[in-house]
Amino acid sequence: MWRDLAAIGRHSGSGGYRRYAWTPADTDCRAWFEAQATGRGLNYEVDRNGNQWAWLGDPGAGDAVVTGSHLDSVPDGGAFDGPLGVVSSFAALDELRARGAAFRKPLAVVNFGDEEGARFGLACVGSRLTAGRLDPDDARALRDADGVTLAEAMTRAGRDPGAIGPDPERLAGIGAFVELHIEQGRALDLEDRPVGVASAIWPHGRWRFDFRGEANHAGTTRLADRHDPMLTYATTVLAARKKARLAGALATFGKVDVAPNGVNAIASRVRGWLDARAADEATLAALVAAVEQAATERGDRDGVGVTVTRESFTPVVEFAHDLRDRLAALITAAGPGGPVPVLPTGAGHDAGILAEAVPTAMLFVRNPTGVSHSPAESAAEDDCLAGVTALADVLEGLAC
Amino acid sequence: MWRDLAAIGRHSGSGGYRRYAWTPADTDCRAWFEAQATGRGLNYEVDRNGNQWAWLGDPGAGDAVVTGSHLDSVPDGGAFDGPLGVVSSFAALDELRARGAAFRKPLAVVNFGDEEGARFGLACVGSRLTAGRLDPDDARALRDADGVTLAEAMTRAGRDPGAIGPDPERLAGIGAFVELHIEQGRALDLEDRPVGVASAIWPHGRWRFDFRGEANHAGTTRLADRHDPMLTYATTVLAARKKARLAGALATFGKVDVAPNGVNAIASRVRGWLDARAADEATLAALVAAVEQAATERGDRDGVGVTVTRESFTPVVEFAHDLRDRLAALITAAGPGGPVPVLPTGAGHDAGILAEAVPTAMLFVRNPTGVSHSPAESAAEDDCLAGVTALADVLEGLAC
Repeated sequence: MWRDLAAIGRHSGSGGYRRYAWTPADTDCRAWFEAQATGRGLNYEVDRNGNQWAWLGDPGAGDAVVTGSHLDSVPDGGAFDGPLGVVSSFAALDELRARGAAFRKPLAVVNFGDEEGARFGLACVGSRLTAGRLDPDDARALRDADGVTLAEAMTRAGRDPGAIGPDPERLAGIGAFVELHIEQGRALDLEDRPVGVASAIWPHGRWRFDFRGEANHAGTTRLADRHDPMLTYATTVLAARKKARLAGALATFGKVDVAPNGVNAIASRVRGWLDARAADEATLAALVAAVEQAATERGDRDGVGVTVTRESFTPVVEFAHDLRDRLAALITAAGPGGPVPVLPTGAGHDAGILAEAVPTAMLFVRNPTGVSHSPAESAAEDDCLAGVTALADVLEGLAC
Repeated sequence: MWRDLAAIGRHSGSGGYRRYAWTPADTDCRAWFEAQATGRGLNYEVDRNGNQWAWLGDPGAGDAVVTGSHLDSVPDGGAFDGPLGVVSSFAALDELRARGAAFRKPLAVVNFGDEEGARFGLACVGSRLTAGRLDPDDARALRDADGVTLAEAMTRAGRDPGAIGPDPERLAGIGAFVELHIEQGRALDLEDRPVGVASAIWPHGRWRFDFRGEANHAGTTRLADRHDPMLTYATTVLAARKKARLAGALATFGKVDVAPNGVNAIASRVRGWLDARAADEATLAALVAAVEQAATERGDRDGVGVTVTRESFTPVVEFAHDLRDRLAALITAAGPGGPVPVLPTGAGHDAGILAEAVPTAMLFVRNPTGVSHSPAESAAEDDCLAGVTALADVLEGLAC
């Protein structure tokens, strides 16, 4: 399976993957999924929102067990973020058949569309639409960097954008959803364990900081006469790191936009985006407030105005405790090494979107470097196989 | 004169000027210059490098007195930087004629092409070529942001790029060059004087700082596992300001470029440009070394590599002392308020380029806010008129 998928959408220069929603690379990934489904005699379907499903058993029977992830990527992403979950799902199904498992419930493998949001700027579009957490008109109007709307992109890819929208009947027929994903940190590596179970997705959000100063000549303006927003921005970057460390949280400025952005011009405006995450919402709110306060205090000294705008916010997701505990017990019972680690994650996932409507759980596979959203992302073959075995154990326990 | 010039190349959104070399706005400015020259019965010519000249008297007689500046602008520049010198030159000539001055030497008004370097990235192209300080092949190969070479741009504007190059005979015929310019700081305002004389141009340069870290997921990577170049950059920005303050110098980071520049991605690379200037070259070298040391020390802590590349450097320019003193004496004798201020500047000018080959001086006109390279740049009408009078006094003393 990996061999056919490995070449799709891989950029020869960076070595990273560029599989963006409704592009030719995405279409190729989707054709791969359909071939995997039909090659196993599974019933293949695409739902109204473009998510792909491969069914074993009758979808209408209810209480289905669903597993899967996504095949799209961030810009120059790694090979595992998303695809590992889909490949492992098919492989776990193969293993269950090899074990001679008797299925009591319908089982499906799913590929959710546009999880990364790399093209249209919004993550988890496929699962959001299905769960009724994204207005179809808003979705159709999303635009990529070239001005192409999501509606146009779907039409070009042969889909009907008029059909998208909530799919409550489909969700009502699902008894459990399990997403396997490569870990995006080093927690499993630090515990020297190949597989873990998710406890929760940290609340997270992005805040835009606008620093407004005054453009001026870098070669002639006295330091005392300047209103340089780059200084305020720099102080804020360092404050965010320090406040996050003190709070046991995460805070990152990874994107910045400067005007006029000339070498010999003091900036008139610096715009920086804060990505912040914490274990609970109170900690996150206090962290962002502390960063904003540091920015404002320095801005007062610099004669620079500071405005903070919350661009997005996702509340904490606590995965269903009974399903989580059942998965942990199943994996612990089958494998060596004692109780399986149960750990939170700072990253959003389709599982986080579905968790409100469906009992949902996640498995993580060790990432020895912790590197994610990069071609340097990696997983050992043994760990991938351990992930397949764990997923097969879980599916057997839930569906057989 | 101002009325005809005011509308050319003004951007309706920003209110700033966008008069870039060899664009239609530049062509319109040049047509204005030709009309001013011929309307006064001056002999108009364009030299091999595209600089415009308006002659009173015989250019071949030698020991000419030349005054002027430039008409092009930085992106969204103000109305005075450049044009004030050209307009004042024509106005001073009008005043000398009104005074009935008898000219003993040829006198010319000049408009040097492409002083700001806004389009092709190199400042003072017209004067550099004339002074033999820019290789013609290098000049022709300069490219703008759209990939158009200077040679192509000149051809489209009706000029012959094959003709560009050193013009030593022209320079040999000039006995003195005086450039009037709006001040780009607040020194005159702080002394409450309308006009000053330049002593020197500070040595200055630009250094590119490359900070190399590791791209990773902002939501999942532990702070301890990060190699975040944004932190190193932020520390360097603040260090540059502090070191400049301690040295009585200027240091600015006004341009930055980040990869991949995603909100939820730790940056893999941050590139920042340092513009630094000081009263002497030793101070400047020590300043840049101190900023580099601060960057490297923080980079070691962040696991971020730092490389510093000097992209340009202009040594100190000391304007000819006898000409400077003569100008100061002429203005002081004619005006009220005691000795005219003599002050250095941090900005480069065509006068700085010509100073090696020709006795050169500069006059500054008060800029009450000190704002430069911005639509907010301003000068009071009375001060502009005082500038014209001072320039007329100087030209009368030198040429009559």
